[in-house]
Amino acid sequence: MQKRDELYRGKAKTVYLTDDSDKLILLFRNDTSAFDGEKIEQLDRKGEVNNKFNHFIMSKLEAAGVATQVESIISDTESVVKKLDMIPVECVVRNVAAGSLVRRLGVEEGMDLNPPVFEFFLKNDALHDPMINDYHVTSFGWATASQIEAMKKTTFAVNSILKKLFDDAGMILVDYKLEFGTDAEGNLILGDEFTPDGCRLWDKETRKKMDKDRFRQGLGSVVETYIEVAERLGVALDSVK
Amino acid sequence: MQKRDELYRGKAKTVYLTDDSDKLILLFRNDTSAFDGEKIEQLDRKGEVNNKFNHFIMSKLEAAGVATQVESIISDTESVVKKLDMIPVECVVRNVAAGSLVRRLGVEEGMDLNPPVFEFFLKNDALHDPMINDYHVTSFGWATASQIEAMKKTTFAVNSILKKLFDDAGMILVDYKLEFGTDAEGNLILGDEFTPDGCRLWDKETRKKMDKDRFRQGLGSVVETYIEVAERLGVALDSVK
Repeated sequence: MQKRDELYRGKAKTVYLTDDSDKLILLFRNDTSAFDGEKIEQLDRKGEVNNKFNHFIMSKLEAAGVATQVESIISDTESVVKKLDMIPVECVVRNVAAGSLVRRLGVEEGMDLNPPVFEFFLKNDALHDPMINDYHVTSFGWATASQIEAMKKTTFAVNSILKKLFDDAGMILVDYKLEFGTDAEGNLILGDEFTPDGCRLWDKETRKKMDKDRFRQGLGSVVETYIEVAERLGVALDSVK
Repeated sequence: MQKRDELYRGKAKTVYLTDDSDKLILLFRNDTSAFDGEKIEQLDRKGEVNNKFNHFIMSKLEAAGVATQVESIISDTESVVKKLDMIPVECVVRNVAAGSLVRRLGVEEGMDLNPPVFEFFLKNDALHDPMINDYHVTSFGWATASQIEAMKKTTFAVNSILKKLFDDAGMILVDYKLEFGTDAEGNLILGDEFTPDGCRLWDKETRKKMDKDRFRQGLGSVVETYIEVAERLGVALDSVK
């Protein structure tokens, strides 16, 4: 497969066209950003760790019946994915209160959320990714009512699969963000990424933060901790599979 | 009926206990506030106009089959209402984009919203009444799933009734906020108030603002315009009914 022009440069990934019009290449960069891009640093090996981490998680989800964008890993920092028409909303599930929920609702960090909370956010940096609801999504045409239902159903299905995966490896899946798109046939497919950049993971015993909050909060050992998460799960980091 | 101790003092109304344990007295004050109470003024006659306006609208809603808290008007500025256990959320319906929606989502004021948008907000001044969704309401125990469904159903039913009422009087019902509570038997009842303090109304032809935005935006003639709205609807302002 031939890499062609850059299609889109996000804050941590670059998307390239390829000679196959149905496929893209995702490049996971070392750039690490927080606070709508106000804090940006290059963290050595982060692109590689996230690329391999994402491939591992997406493969687990595929095996459990979730349709994902990921096709194959082609280098330390690159994966081939299906081309999707991305829906401009983020789907968040929260099992434990943390992050913006704590600030917005004045609840205590670490509070169990039962049932888990689902939230939609509009992907819009200039507006600071505002929280939205089903009515905004349909009234402004960002997705259809049936796509909303399918996104929620899949996001909760992912919760069941990954909560157990992380629990078995001694970690709590606190919250995470998913993004979806549609393929040429209109099927809803899980896109973007699942990495410690887009979820919160705490050690089950010590509650040590093992995700991008280490970067946001200046806790240090960011990539070292991502590698610890990967090793606990059995992600092969030493070689391209 | 005897007025007893003050139960609660809000930003524009005071609630009193009475000698009937199932009844309260609502006093509509002249206080007018905006921006979480940062801007407060006394506007002559506002309490009287809002008390009579609220009684008129709630009576129209009762006649159309909506269970409301309002019993009777007992003075220029006071009404007797059923005692409710209030649910701490605000139910907002938006027919046209205005106010916080415009700021949050970067859409143009005046854009028709089709279908109308429904939003929940948590009543919490210290947190600036954050927007919440169904999942927050149930996870934090603010209302049950069936109360959520009933609040949405009634809020949209009110929209059908009042859109026509205001349209017939040459006005556009842009958006409005309702609050609900439960009575001793657990029935969901429309509480709080419906006045130009808690909705947006525009003249159909000129799009002149005829609601609290006149106060928020310093447009002047606040109570004079509320009186114009009342007169167009046929609210009797000269005497207590």
